[in-house]
Amino acid sequence: MDVRFRATFINSLWGFRPLALIGTSDKFNRTNLSIFNSIVHLGANPPLFAMIVRPDSVERHTLENIRERGEFTVNMVGKDFVEQAHQTSARYPKEVSEFDATGLTQLWRNGIDVPFVKESAIQIHATVVEEYRLAVNNTQFLIAQVEQVFIEPATIQEDGYVDHIKAQTATGCGLDGYYEPQLLKRLPYAKVK
Amino acid sequence: MDVRFRATFINSLWGFRPLALIGTSDKFNRTNLSIFNSIVHLGANPPLFAMIVRPDSVERHTLENIRERGEFTVNMVGKDFVEQAHQTSARYPKEVSEFDATGLTQLWRNGIDVPFVKESAIQIHATVVEEYRLAVNNTQFLIAQVEQVFIEPATIQEDGYVDHIKAQTATGCGLDGYYEPQLLKRLPYAKVK
Repeated sequence: MDVRFRATFINSLWGFRPLALIGTSDKFNRTNLSIFNSIVHLGANPPLFAMIVRPDSVERHTLENIRERGEFTVNMVGKDFVEQAHQTSARYPKEVSEFDATGLTQLWRNGIDVPFVKESAIQIHATVVEEYRLAVNNTQFLIAQVEQVFIEPATIQEDGYVDHIKAQTATGCGLDGYYEPQLLKRLPYAKVK
Repeated sequence: MDVRFRATFINSLWGFRPLALIGTSDKFNRTNLSIFNSIVHLGANPPLFAMIVRPDSVERHTLENIRERGEFTVNMVGKDFVEQAHQTSARYPKEVSEFDATGLTQLWRNGIDVPFVKESAIQIHATVVEEYRLAVNNTQFLIAQVEQVFIEPATIQEDGYVDHIKAQTATGCGLDGYYEPQLLKRLPYAKVK
């Protein structure tokens, strides 16, 4: 297999993934925004998640900032701003903020030193818990904790389920495919029959 | 927050995730099948991915088998069998095969000691590379390598991109929401403007 063919194939093999914009700032208050599709749920109590960061990618600015501050924001990508979200993956130099480059709007909240994305319907403030280096291919595995979630109450169903159809959350496949899901169904808790 | 409300909320916060059925067998050739929504791409060369396994969950039978054999199958969940895929999350005892319990069809391939799911349009044979225990909440982080992919060639686009719309792959949110995505667009590689 050709190297690029193979990269596209393996990257898209796993189907649909969460899309989030990670908002950070450095000690000079320069902001950075980068699209990630590698968020994975770790547990609800405490509310933990993980992200994969490739050291050779544009994501490295994000990782440097996260290490500097110990905190960052996770902003779920909505279908109305997938082009702008995708554009954050361009290799901008560190002194250029992807907020300026893409036209996405910085939102600052009291007592939090990292920027949110105003356009996002689901905004999360997170702090770093732990970091592993995966020796096998030199990627970083970052574990973080949810501190606060900013979301319209109408987007949360009675049992706590976040309605991503109402939030108009997009999903991604590979590095460049953007999709809009439709609900098939929510199923009851599976029991042995 | 109530414990169940919180679990549902945090589990569904991250939006849409890949859905795969993990096929395994033990040394007595008893088969096991379990739905996972925690697969994450690690790299294309070598073709690596990771999965999160909760030790207190039904996924533990899968983990025991994976450790025993060092290999397993990943079968992407199609929209036509989400109910059966979901039913594998019931707490069956180890001697019951979820293939029998759900009616999904075992498919065996030459030289591979773990079962595939015949109904799945994208079937992957994988071997274990490494396992980490995440001290922070006692979950296992399993790193594996893609050995072989079984997929209709018509499902792969010219550049290697897997067309999950054609494959009718479903996506999930939380532990019980099933969705069918529609393509918004594939975007060109993002360049600094």
